[in-house]
Amino acid sequence: WKEGIRFESEDRKTEIKAGGVIQTDWAAFDPDEEVDAAFSDDDIDGHGVEFRRARLFVEGTIYENYEFKSEFEFAEGDVDFTDVWLGMKNIPYVGRIRVGHQKEPFSLEELTSSKFITFMERGLPNAFSPGRNTGLTLSNQELNGLMTWAMGAFYETDDFGDSFADFSDYQATARITGLPWYCEDGRELVHLGLSYSHKFRDSDETTVRFSARPEAHLTDARLADTGSIATDGVDLFNPEFAMVYGPFSLQGEYFQALVDSEADDYTDFYGFYVFASYFLTGEHRPYKTSSGAFDRVKPRQNFNPVKGGWGAWELGVRYSRLDLNDAGITGGREQNYTFGLNWYPNPNMRVMFNYVLAQIEDREDLGIDDADVNIFESRFQVDF
Amino acid sequence: WKEGIRFESEDRKTEIKAGGVIQTDWAAFDPDEEVDAAFSDDDIDGHGVEFRRARLFVEGTIYENYEFKSEFEFAEGDVDFTDVWLGMKNIPYVGRIRVGHQKEPFSLEELTSSKFITFMERGLPNAFSPGRNTGLTLSNQELNGLMTWAMGAFYETDDFGDSFADFSDYQATARITGLPWYCEDGRELVHLGLSYSHKFRDSDETTVRFSARPEAHLTDARLADTGSIATDGVDLFNPEFAMVYGPFSLQGEYFQALVDSEADDYTDFYGFYVFASYFLTGEHRPYKTSSGAFDRVKPRQNFNPVKGGWGAWELGVRYSRLDLNDAGITGGREQNYTFGLNWYPNPNMRVMFNYVLAQIEDREDLGIDDADVNIFESRFQVDF
Amino acid sequence: WKEGIRFESEDRKTEIKAGGVIQTDWAAFDPDEEVDAAFSDDDIDGHGVEFRRARLFVEGTIYENYEFKSEFEFAEGDVDFTDVWLGMKNIPYVGRIRVGHQKEPFSLEELTSSKFITFMERGLPNAFSPGRNTGLTLSNQELNGLMTWAMGAFYETDDFGDSFADFSDYQATARITGLPWYCEDGRELVHLGLSYSHKFRDSDETTVRFSARPEAHLTDARLADTGSIATDGVDLFNPEFAMVYGPFSLQGEYFQALVDSEADDYTDFYGFYVFASYFLTGEHRPYKTSSGAFDRVKPRQNFNPVKGGWGAWELGVRYSRLDLNDAGITGGREQNYTFGLNWYPNPNMRVMFNYVLAQIEDREDLGIDDADVNIFESRFQVDF
Repeated sequence: WKEGIRFESEDRKTEIKAGGVIQTDWAAFDPDEEVDAAFSDDDIDGHGVEFRRARLFVEGTIYENYEFKSEFEFAEGDVDFTDVWLGMKNIPYVGRIRVGHQKEPFSLEELTSSKFITFMERGLPNAFSPGRNTGLTLSNQELNGLMTWAMGAFYETDDFGDSFADFSDYQATARITGLPWYCEDGRELVHLGLSYSHKFRDSDETTVRFSARPEAHLTDARLADTGSIATDGVDLFNPEFAMVYGPFSLQGEYFQALVDSEADDYTDFYGFYVFASYFLTGEHRPYKTSSGAFDRVKPRQNFNPVKGGWGAWELGVRYSRLDLNDAGITGGREQNYTFGLNWYPNPNMRVMFNYVLAQIEDREDLGIDDADVNIFESRFQVDF
Repeated sequence: WKEGIRFESEDRKTEIKAGGVIQTDWAAFDPDEEVDAAFSDDDIDGHGVEFRRARLFVEGTIYENYEFKSEFEFAEGDVDFTDVWLGMKNIPYVGRIRVGHQKEPFSLEELTSSKFITFMERGLPNAFSPGRNTGLTLSNQELNGLMTWAMGAFYETDDFGDSFADFSDYQATARITGLPWYCEDGRELVHLGLSYSHKFRDSDETTVRFSARPEAHLTDARLADTGSIATDGVDLFNPEFAMVYGPFSLQGEYFQALVDSEADDYTDFYGFYVFASYFLTGEHRPYKTSSGAFDRVKPRQNFNPVKGGWGAWELGVRYSRLDLNDAGITGGREQNYTFGLNWYPNPNMRVMFNYVLAQIEDREDLGIDDADVNIFESRFQVDF
Repeated sequence: WKEGIRFESEDRKTEIKAGGVIQTDWAAFDPDEEVDAAFSDDDIDGHGVEFRRARLFVEGTIYENYEFKSEFEFAEGDVDFTDVWLGMKNIPYVGRIRVGHQKEPFSLEELTSSKFITFMERGLPNAFSPGRNTGLTLSNQELNGLMTWAMGAFYETDDFGDSFADFSDYQATARITGLPWYCEDGRELVHLGLSYSHKFRDSDETTVRFSARPEAHLTDARLADTGSIATDGVDLFNPEFAMVYGPFSLQGEYFQALVDSEADDYTDFYGFYVFASYFLTGEHRPYKTSSGAFDRVKPRQNFNPVKGGWGAWELGVRYSRLDLNDAGITGGREQNYTFGLNWYPNPNMRVMFNYVLAQIEDREDLGIDDADVNIFESRFQVDF
């Protein structure tokens, strides 16, 4: 047990980990009348509970240079494929090769595990992130871990990693990150990153769609939604910034999508978010140099009502914006203000409270001019 | 391996168990003409096999005071959530807190694991038990384990632990148990218990329904079934009794449901069961003081045709009754006589044979006056 | 870790294994016009990726003589039951008893694990193999492992091991194998085998259907397909042959199905395949005497670009034929030519490339006279 279940062979050529994560959420939604009229009650006006994530995995390094991961998501009763891949590492020059279902190398917040992100949901413009698909990636670190690069080619697959079509459904994605400033083992750092992705499509049959829930998953309502757009190809750009300065940290990303459609040469959507986080109990947000993303928070002292110790307490505030209106498409302009409080009683558990004020403007297809939703939500999480 | 797969750290602050259960069932149904006419052949007239339960779990105690369980049910091809929760224990005064999908503290037979119940299915009035839902529970033992109490608040959730609605869908449930007599490490004991649950509902949109299969799961026919009843709230009462006297044991429970509906202030349904069990080979039914429920049977000698040893053999007989007729609702009056023979070749395997005579009366909505079904069924079970 | 994750107790009375397999496939199909016209584009004209298999299992031997396996298949998002059974072994005379969902003892290629078969898919006449169903089997080895026998009775069950009906849905299956020549620990051997199965049916309600994809799973098109045939019973015969001579091996099987239908006393379908395999790097195909089937290939040297070592490389070629035309049924006559190249970088990983030329004739119900499909496919596999 090292913040997870592990088995190692004595020569360290084999290491197996097995484990999982449970996230059990509660949320209550208070939409105004304009939203109420545009969406059905079942979607947005109510309260409830759900398992946001319930995953089990086995992963390992075998024969020193080979690795695999097999992780499945059981929430909502079917079996979604999350990380299901095999690969080789320690290859001269190339570093790592992985084949299978995996995250495309795009966006700092997307590549930070959902177990470790600062708010319950990623920011609105995560709508542009390709997420996980089935393909092949190469990746490596350079400059003693101060730089990472990754690139890959993917089929656009369903939740089970499958795709079959007689048209183009590919994409190529790449990311590069660097640490211009890094000291005290990551207690102070500046991270910069840049991701790019191109979706290869042919417009007779292929479409693209961007949409987002407000920053709460219990509703199915997509306040902002382009609908399907026939397209010949899509370019996605994503510069990243993050800074850690002891218990304080800042993080922000910008996203731009250029959709090559018949209506316009480049229909242009964009979004961004920026957030600040502060640990009242003095911890800092740990950074993982091998992936160029954030990692597990470990409290200085576990919560223990008998012996003393309060765990770690973190405050966060985020502003995010998503603009899906352009060239006759009225997907809406949305902004979310999110306030968060996280409690980490031990390194493997976390209790989160989020308040979200979601505002949606100019969503003409639903007759929404300027509306908002108040959302209260909480999460109990364990990973093992 | 201690009747299950276990990993412990040396300081005993961490203990992980992983395992599962398989129950593979066969059954044959012989309904009389009245039942045959009321139900379709596909439901009740036939024979077949099924996996009654097929579960995998990981559970553990971490950092001494924290615990989790993550168990999923794969029978019938989807992923149902059984025990999926996290919590803390050894809390002064409070004892344990658990958040997630778990059994509501109601009914001795419900709270005894399906791996250890005496007959293949729980008795008919289990129809009243709330079973598992998503919520928060507190529980503790008092008087050196001679008493337990538990209480919790829950959303009424689907098989995947999810719920979303704009109306009331809550319930509160509590149970208290005691052992007025307990000696020889549980080889002789008397158990008393009392459970209560209230479903908070608002009748415009909310309904409740009680129904039961005969005590065999391979049929989908609910011989007794109230249909949906619009309700403002439901009260459930459940006194429990059990006695172990060496290889002999008795167990019984009474259930009453008061449904606050428009038709009647209190539509009143009830049920009860009583059973006796006897171990021919001298074992006794073990009782778990921490949960106030029964536990795993361990044969004195494993079955071994080479070295000798027959495992444990147990006989059982049960009478159960369920009355779902009141205030114009004609869900039927059902009684089941069940005869059981259990063979435990080792502590982790069990072969069961049950004969059930199910009788249903006064089910007017289906035109059944007095009818019966003969059922033969068997189960092969391993848990690990 | 011994080509898999294992836990053993010190007295060797308990041994638990846990693991799984991932197979991630790519394929491209090039059908001619006749096929294109008969099938929809979504089925046969295209390219894509899928997880062919994604399984997790726990299996074990407990209390020295008892065993179980619990393996589930997550591909395509539901939970199929593969090997889910419990049993006893080391029984005098009888050998092993297993109850649950398991492979019927029929066909060498079917009984060789999908992790170890030489081509990506089994040959066309595997359409006749009963595969896995829920039932009871007896099996044993004789003559110091030079002979095996197995027999069982089964319900015809769905992917989840369930069946319920008021008519006959049983089958009985048996297999016997022998090694007239076996030396150098299996580096040279001749295997002979014979399987027989009878499906007990009553024709009012029961039907049987044989169909096959071309030897590629990413398409859903069944080039050969009898459709449903009402039947009183089906006899299946299957003689097997295999030979290993160092790195070279041959394998072939014949299949015959006699369907007792109203149209004809014995509607007669048949198929066969024969293939050759050669290891360029000197390994041989390992044979498992306890099951009478082939086993895991272990490269002499793992692939290691730094230290040297190329893994194992294997070439294969197969011809297979399936004839589903008889007595007015025009399921078609199909033959497949398959060329394969396998690379085993280490004992637990495999990369496969197959080219398949599939030819279908006389499929009158679809208006196909003589048509063909070219298929290119590859697989990345890890098992653990």
